[in-house]
Order: sequence, then structure tokens, then C-alpha cells
Amino acid sequence: MKIEVDFQPIGKHVEIDSGTTILEAAQEAGVGISAICGGAGSCGACRVRLDDQEHVSKPNETEIKVLDSDDLASGIRLACQTEIYGPTRVDVPPESMTATQRTQVEGEEISFEFESPIKILDLTLTKAEAIDLQADFERLSAAVLTNNGSTLHCRRMNVLKQIPGLLRGNKWKIQVGLRGDELVSVSAPGTPLLGMAVDIGTTKVAGYLVDMASGKTLALKGIMNPQIAYGEDVMARITYSLMHENGSDVLQKAIIHALNELAVDLCALAGAGDDTDAPVYLPTQIVESVMVGNTAMHHLLLGLPVEQLGLSPYVAAVSSPLDVKADEIDLAFSPGATVHLLANIAGFVGADHLSMLLATDTHKKKGVVISLDIGTNTEITLVAHGRMIACSTASGPAFEGAHIHDGMRAADGAIERVQIVDNKLAFQTIGHTAPVGICGSGILDAIAQLKLCGAMNEKGALDVKHPLVRKGEKLPEVLLAAAAITGNGHDIVLTRSDINEIQLAKGAMRAGIELLLDAAGVTAADVDEFIIAGAFGSYISVEAAVGIGMFPDIPIDRFRQVGNAAGIGAKQALLSTTRRAEAAGIADRVEYLELTVSEQFQAQFLKALYM
Amino acid sequence: MKIEVDFQPIGKHVEIDSGTTILEAAQEAGVGISAICGGAGSCGACRVRLDDQEHVSKPNETEIKVLDSDDLASGIRLACQTEIYGPTRVDVPPESMTATQRTQVEGEEISFEFESPIKILDLTLTKAEAIDLQADFERLSAAVLTNNGSTLHCRRMNVLKQIPGLLRGNKWKIQVGLRGDELVSVSAPGTPLLGMAVDIGTTKVAGYLVDMASGKTLALKGIMNPQIAYGEDVMARITYSLMHENGSDVLQKAIIHALNELAVDLCALAGAGDDTDAPVYLPTQIVESVMVGNTAMHHLLLGLPVEQLGLSPYVAAVSSPLDVKADEIDLAFSPGATVHLLANIAGFVGADHLSMLLATDTHKKKGVVISLDIGTNTEITLVAHGRMIACSTASGPAFEGAHIHDGMRAADGAIERVQIVDNKLAFQTIGHTAPVGICGSGILDAIAQLKLCGAMNEKGALDVKHPLVRKGEKLPEVLLAAAAITGNGHDIVLTRSDINEIQLAKGAMRAGIELLLDAAGVTAADVDEFIIAGAFGSYISVEAAVGIGMFPDIPIDRFRQVGNAAGIGAKQALLSTTRRAEAAGIADRVEYLELTVSEQFQAQFLKALYM
Repeated sequence: MKIEVDFQPIGKHVEIDSGTTILEAAQEAGVGISAICGGAGSCGACRVRLDDQEHVSKPNETEIKVLDSDDLASGIRLACQTEIYGPTRVDVPPESMTATQRTQVEGEEISFEFESPIKILDLTLTKAEAIDLQADFERLSAAVLTNNGSTLHCRRMNVLKQIPGLLRGNKWKIQVGLRGDELVSVSAPGTPLLGMAVDIGTTKVAGYLVDMASGKTLALKGIMNPQIAYGEDVMARITYSLMHENGSDVLQKAIIHALNELAVDLCALAGAGDDTDAPVYLPTQIVESVMVGNTAMHHLLLGLPVEQLGLSPYVAAVSSPLDVKADEIDLAFSPGATVHLLANIAGFVGADHLSMLLATDTHKKKGVVISLDIGTNTEITLVAHGRMIACSTASGPAFEGAHIHDGMRAADGAIERVQIVDNKLAFQTIGHTAPVGICGSGILDAIAQLKLCGAMNEKGALDVKHPLVRKGEKLPEVLLAAAAITGNGHDIVLTRSDINEIQLAKGAMRAGIELLLDAAGVTAADVDEFIIAGAFGSYISVEAAVGIGMFPDIPIDRFRQVGNAAGIGAKQALLSTTRRAEAAGIADRVEYLELTVSEQFQAQFLKALYM
Repeated sequence: MKIEVDFQPIGKHVEIDSGTTILEAAQEAGVGISAICGGAGSCGACRVRLDDQEHVSKPNETEIKVLDSDDLASGIRLACQTEIYGPTRVDVPPESMTATQRTQVEGEEISFEFESPIKILDLTLTKAEAIDLQADFERLSAAVLTNNGSTLHCRRMNVLKQIPGLLRGNKWKIQVGLRGDELVSVSAPGTPLLGMAVDIGTTKVAGYLVDMASGKTLALKGIMNPQIAYGEDVMARITYSLMHENGSDVLQKAIIHALNELAVDLCALAGAGDDTDAPVYLPTQIVESVMVGNTAMHHLLLGLPVEQLGLSPYVAAVSSPLDVKADEIDLAFSPGATVHLLANIAGFVGADHLSMLLATDTHKKKGVVISLDIGTNTEITLVAHGRMIACSTASGPAFEGAHIHDGMRAADGAIERVQIVDNKLAFQTIGHTAPVGICGSGILDAIAQLKLCGAMNEKGALDVKHPLVRKGEKLPEVLLAAAAITGNGHDIVLTRSDINEIQLAKGAMRAGIELLLDAAGVTAADVDEFIIAGAFGSYISVEAAVGIGMFPDIPIDRFRQVGNAAGIGAKQALLSTTRRAEAAGIADRVEYLELTVSEQFQAQFLKALYM
């Protein structure tokens, strides 16, 4: 008799034998639950929550030791210790997920009504003949007027030119895609019309393929932003475009090429099911797209100049929502396809942050709420007493593993979790392979744990007398993994300089938060909800982040990690004209705080450097 | 003491010595007046009209012999016989002009108010700074709203991308071009904004460059349509595009390349004056264009399929007026430039004919009027009792000199005029050089004269007994110029086959006219005005055309030759939104008669073959 286990919010099911632990069940289901101690019950990283404990073992001694009574009372259990004897639903909190797992979680999607910007009509026209010589487009227009009450217009010759062949090749039947009264697509009846939502991050690009007739998500995929080759962060890319003739063109071509490949991959994924009758999906069926990114990514995508963005007072070329024809920027979509760009807020606070605010319904929150999206730039919005104030801080690429001695991106072999118990350091790597470096969440954990165990003071200095600290080449360092056990034969260390990089990054972020609170006349204690978006923000330990002072010290249950909210917002704006209009409304409402001209920034920043 | 002579309607002035003949004065002024007999006073081709004969010689014996009393009473004189003694104005009727001269005459332009589709604003914006971070486009939009009351939108990233640099490079001053509420151009203050009107004929392309701020015509130029290399007439080009992969692309690229070169040439002509302070004109300053052509030229320009145009029932892909962005068809104009295409009427009756109807105000005529545009296809519209009915006939390229034994286009050395007096044949060539061939007007003259002198019967057969007729290789022929006097050392002849080609061409044209008259229930005698447009139509002898039955036998003074009316119409639609709207109204109003399905066509055509 197999027992069914249901993992939420990931939505994975697995059937197991009676007596299997939740951790084992999770591994079988492909659900990544943290287990730094390898299932010994000592690290406490594998906490899960069970609403109903009827079909599981009672808390054992190990659990009673590691978990406090509040935890136990609220249904928290250790996955490695809990055995399953009957159907059970397991809630995996974000902090217990592995890094790779977390980046796949999209957070709770706001429910919204599917209101496609594209209306699809199937029409049968009367055949042209000697006594009825109306031209093809006018014949089609007349049918649309009869069927839809709208007067057709067409802005693309490449759409118009398809009409004569389609009509004559399909016995005068034709499927049309309308965007308002604009004819954006003509195709043989039954051709799927697709939509593509994209979040263009400085480092990563996330794409979603949807069916514009049903609103169904057909595929999703993440890729790297190839512009990285020309500069790690926004400022480096602006500098590249300034210093190189056609620099902007080079950067634009790189992202466009990647988006075209992403579209091909998404279509292949969507069509890769077992159903041999499944329709064929092609990028040329993409009729509508929503793309979001920070202001620089937005400008580089559209080929807009970024020079003025890189110089005070950091002004965008355009901030309003834009409808751009896909072919104008060489996207190989349907010839009439439109790319909708959500509005940029101001400075570097771009459409990606707006999209995150939309996806999390931040604009509808009562009380005091902070929504922040951690990336190479961190954008922060504070909602307080009906106001929305946003700022951007240059948090730099340290959280992505850059400028860190053994830093790496969250990939197989990266130390993603660190725990220090009794001055002994334990860690977990992504993919459970031998360690080859450390990623952002691991660095945060390590620093927080070093402070807790007294190896590091609040200025970030390492105590050379502490058993975990050793002398480095110039400054003290901590050995995370000795060469003998690493995957590359080198020691993996955390240096004083690494700590310094993180100090600068978290200092900037915290200073931004404090200045927003000041501007609104509230304090951290007033914050009712603290929403963290972005891949990195979703797999960090909030306790660690609070521990080192990156976030204010407010109750842990007020934090919410929501995954790639920017991507989800883009998808919502793609599938709902109402949500799209809401996004425009948010952009109009948000006030922008330029930190570089704030007199208090430097003081707040210096204060925020303390751990 | 020099005497001033004013030639009209060409509008040229010259200062001459007292006693100079009008013909000599015309030659000095560069005005081409026909003089088949070389100024001997025998041919009568150099008739001109003088309103005031106070300062010229009295009619001499030669004139009294050649001109009848009605002519003399209405001020008609022979230019070669009339000497000038004081300031005189000379009216040169179209029939007395040389071919090349006539193609330069644009006919009377209808006066219309300049109502530019482009509104030009000079704006000074407040500079962006830390306390005023509005994005550039929104800053510009606000200024446009204040100055013009319109809400700006921009459809082209290539326009948007110019704004940041222009603002910062010109102390926040900027010139904007608006088309309704669309931003189509941004430039440094003082940059001329240009317009280009083009008539794309199957054989020739005529371009006009205008200043969109003043409405002034800056330059005009005619070129050959390079698509000729792929097919002489419309059907040949449709066949080419059918038979060759990417055939349509090849044809589209050819005309686009030619238009881009034409734009460069027009700008060079416009800037070629003596004024060293004159502005620089560049194709990238062209912000609006109107292009007209027959339906096939229209489709090939836009890259629309022509296959269905070549097969019964000959249906266009689109017939409505279109606004196409210039960059969509690779025209190297201003990045936001719009190309407006006037509507196609139906079948092959395209925007060029509509443009001709507009330029001649045919749609406003009372009574019975025929307007026709002779080309490789001839389009004819009949106005009668408030109805407008149009048809198209395949008149073929014979009038352009093609398929004619010694045929050539109207160029230097072409016999353009022929006269037979006392069975002696005289001719005049373009450029007064040794003859190398015969062009359309010469062929028409020759045939009409051969019929008059009895060398040809009404079936087109040459009488071998007539002194001007000799035996040809297979059939009889007429020697026009013997090898000894030609420019190429060969006899120039007119053959029975040549006559046959012209018979077919004029038969088709006449049959179209008769079927239109039938359809409207009127007869040729009812025709109040007969308007002939097109280069060829403007330099033929109307008497000759009536003589061989190409046109119905109505009084000569009801004919009006108006030159390149299609080009003039395009220019009017470019410079006047009212005229542009009028054109759309004409297209809606014209009824189309498809001759290929008319049962009477064959009978009328056979009848019309008679000379």
C-alpha cells in the first residue's frame, strides 16, 4: 500500500511506503529541503509544517531538543525525523528549501481574471469573384465589423501581406488576432496564438510562454543575461555603451538574440509533451509580449541611449508604458506582435520593480509595508499611510557571488547554507555535490553564524583568536571547506574582504530602507509586512539577514519571500488588461526618492555598515 | 535695348534684340517649340497665341496661307514668322511644344490651401535636475501639451532615442514634428522638415521635394523605374514575381533603392542654389511622403503579394488609403517618417489614377467629362450625371516605343513629329539631332498623316502603290528617314506590324471609352471635357489621336492635356490634409467597370481597331 504525500506550495505529489521520513519523501519527489547536517537532526534546517499530524510519528527526542514549544505547537516538525504512516500534506516554508528549489517557487500568485489584450476571431469570408471585387483587406474588415463591431486597421505590411495567401489557401477561412481595432495577426484557423512574458534582470532573464486563447502557462525558462559579458552591473554596461562606438547596439543585439533563443526554447518546451496531437508552437505565433526590467535593461532592450542614465541627475529617456512593435527591435515574433513595456518609475527603479509591486499587490496594502527586490541593484518601496515611496540602492553583485574570494552563483557545488554549532562549521551545497565555492545565501549564513559564535565583531572584524579564524594572506579568514573535500582541490574560505563586500551591499540596502521609513515618518517597528522578491531574496535565510542588520529587526513572521515576483507581474500584465492598467496606475502613484542627493544617506549608510 | 519676352504657361523669360522671331527667342529661352519644317513656315507646327500683338510684326503671306481666318482672329501666329519689336507675352499651346518640353509642363495646378499634415513646434524645456527628475519623453510631452494641447505619443524607438542627445546638445531647445498626436520627428531648432511626393509609374517615377513648413516645392526630378529590368509592363512583373523565388522582394528592393537615390538627388537639387547660407537638405529630414502608383506598383512597393492581382478576378490585397512607416519598407527617411498611400480604386485602377482625378478636380466636374491617364496601362474615368465610373485597359508599351521596329522612348534623336505635305514626309527630332528612332508621338503623327494622304486605309493596311510606301522584308513599310541622314546609319521605317501594335493599343483604349459611355448612358457627343494626363498623353497631337480613332471625334477645344497630373495630385495630398481627405472620398465614390468580364468588350474592341 503506497501512501500519498503532498508538498506545498510547490505542488508536488509522491507515493511512498509507510515509515518513510518526510525528508526521504521530499528527495523522491524532487522537492529540495535543506538538510545541512545530512539528516542527523542537529541542524534544524529541515523544518516543515504539518496542519494535520494524524498520520505521522510523534515528535522524537531530537525534535524536542531542536524545536521550541512554540514551534511544536504551531505544527513545525523536522523533516528528517518525522515518519509518515498515512496520507499527509507537508508545507515547506521558503527558509527550509534549497536554493535551487526556491528559485523555482513563484510565490503565491494573486488570482486575477484572464482578460486577454488579444481577441481571436475565426472568420469565413465570401470568395472574391468577378461580381464582387472587394480587395482582401477590405473584405476581411467588413467581416470583422459584422462579427466584432470594430473598424479594422493594420499597422504592419508584413501582416497585410499574409492575407491573400491565407484566404486562398484555406477556402476563405481565416483566424484573426485583434488588439483593440488593430489587426495584429492572421493565421490558418486553429493556429495557437501565444504570449511571452519576460523579466530581464541584470544577471538573469526569466521567460514565460502562455496561450493567449486560454491564458494557460505553457512553459517557463530562465537564462543568463548575455550582456554580462560586457559588464556585470548596470553602471558597467552604461560605461561600456559610452566607451565603445555602437556599444548600445552591441548590448541591444546581445539581449535580443537571447530573447529570440528563449522564445524558441519556450516553444520547444511547450510542445514537448507526450501528446502527439499537441499543436506546434513557434515564436512566429507570439502576438503579444510584456517585458520588464530595470531602467537600464529597459533602455538597452529598446536601443534607447543610456548615457544620461549614468550621469547625475540619472534621468530616463522615457518612463511611460510603451507599446513597441516586436519587429522594430528585431524580435522574431509574429509580424504584427506588440511588446508592451511596463512603466519605469524613476532613476533606476524600473518596470521590473513596478511589476513586482503589481504581483504582490503592494499597492493595495493597508498599514506599513516594505517591498524589496534584491539584485545587483535593489529597489525598495515603502507603503505607509496611503503613500508609496521608492528608491534604488546599488547593492552590487556580491550577493551573486562576484567580488567574493570563492564566490559563485547559485549553481551545483555552491555552499548555500552554513551552520556553526559548538564552533564546528557545517554546510550544505546545491546538488549535494562536493563544494566548489559559496553563493550569496551561504555567505549571508556564514557571516551571521560567525557573528553569533563570536568569531566576528559588529564591525565585521574577524577575531584571530577564535578557533574558526585563521591567518590569511593579508587579513584573517575563515576556512569553510578544506581542499581535501572540495570539488576543485582548493580551500574554500571566507575572507575579511568578502565580509567587507557584504557590509557595503547590506549597508546600502539598509540605508535605503531607513531613509524611506524616515521620509514617511514611520519606524521599522511599524512595518506590518516585509516582502522580499527576486531569486536571491527568496533563498536567503531571513534570520541571517536580520542577524547581520541587512533587514530591520522585526518579527520573522512579518517577512514574506515571494520568488520572482517581477516575472509573475509581467505575466499578469500579459494576461489581464485590468492588471496592466493597474500597473500604469501604480507608476503614476509612486513617489521616487533619489538617495544620491539625500543628505542623510551617507550617515545612514555608515551606521548600516555595522553588523 | 533688350526686349523682354514672356513664355507661358512654362513661365520662362528671355531678353532679346528687336526683330528676333518668336521661334528664335524660344530657342534662346530653352522653350521647345515644334518646327518640323525647320522654320520655313510650311509645317504650321509652331503655332503660338498672342493676346496682344502691338509689339510684333503683322501676319505675313506665309502665315496667311497656313493659318485660317479663325486662327488669325483668335491671335494664333507662326512662331517662325513673327518678329518681336517690344515686350510680348507668348502663349505656347501644348500641341506646339516639343515632346521633352511637354513632359516638363505640369499643367495648371489647382489652387489649394497649404494645410500641412505635420505641425512643427519649437520648444524650450526646463533642464532636468535632482529636484526635477521627469524622464525626457515625458518632459517633452508636458511641453507639447502646454504648447499644443495634445497628448504626445511616439511609435518609433528611433525617434525616441534621439531626444536625450538633442536636448543636452541644444541647451534643452528642440524642434518637434507632430502628425496628429504622434511625435514623428525631433531635431535641432531650424532643421528644415521635408516632404516627398512620388508618382511611381510602370516606366517612369516622378519625385517632388517640398518644405513642410512653407509648402514650397524645393525640387523635382524624374527617373526610370528600375523594375523595367524585370518586366516591361505590369503583367510581366507579376509573372516575374510568380516565377522567381523572392521575386516580389527583388522588385520591391529595386524600387526602394531607386526612391532612396531619388531622395538624395532631390535634396542635392534643392540645396544646389547660389545661396551659401541655404540650409542643408537631407533625406533624413523627410518626415512625410505621399506615393501613388497603379495597384501593382503600389503592392510591389509595399511588398504585398501580386499573384492574386494577376489572376481573375484580379483582386487587390488592400485598397484603402494606408499610412506606412517609411522604415518598414527600408526608405531611408526620418526615423518616424510616414508614407501615405492614396487608395486604390479597383483592379489595376490604382492610386495614381485617383491622384490624377484629384489633381484635375475631375470629381467636382458638372456635365460629362472623361479623364484618362495613358501609360502601359491606361486608366479612364467617366463623370456623367453625378456618377464616376472607371476602367483600366492594357494599352501596352507601344506608345513608349516598345515592340515598334524602330521605336524608342522620347529621348534625343527620337522622331517626335511627322508631317506629310504633297506626299513628302518631314519630321522633327527631340533635341534637333540626327534621327535614331521614333517615339510614341511620332508614331501617332505618322499613322495619322499616312491615313490623311491615302497611304494607309482604315484597316491599317499600307497601299504599296503609294509613293511613300515600299516593300518591306515581309510586309509593306514606310521609310521615315534614310540611312544616309540617320544618326545610326540605318533606315528608320514604320512597318505594317508597327501600325498593328498601335491599332491594338488604341483599340483597347477606345473600347474602354465606349464601354464607359455606354455604362453611363451617354454618347461621345455629350462629352464636355476630355482630360488627358501622363507624359505621353501630354505630348501627342490630339488631332492625330482623333484622326486614327484613338479618341472619339469631338471638337478639339474640348481636349485638355494636363501633364503629370498623378504627380501633382500626390503633391497636393502631401501638402493639404483637405485634399488628402478629398482623395479618400473620390475612391469611395468611383464605380469600377471590369472590362475583362464585359460581354461587349470584344465587339467594341474589334470596332475600335479601325482607323
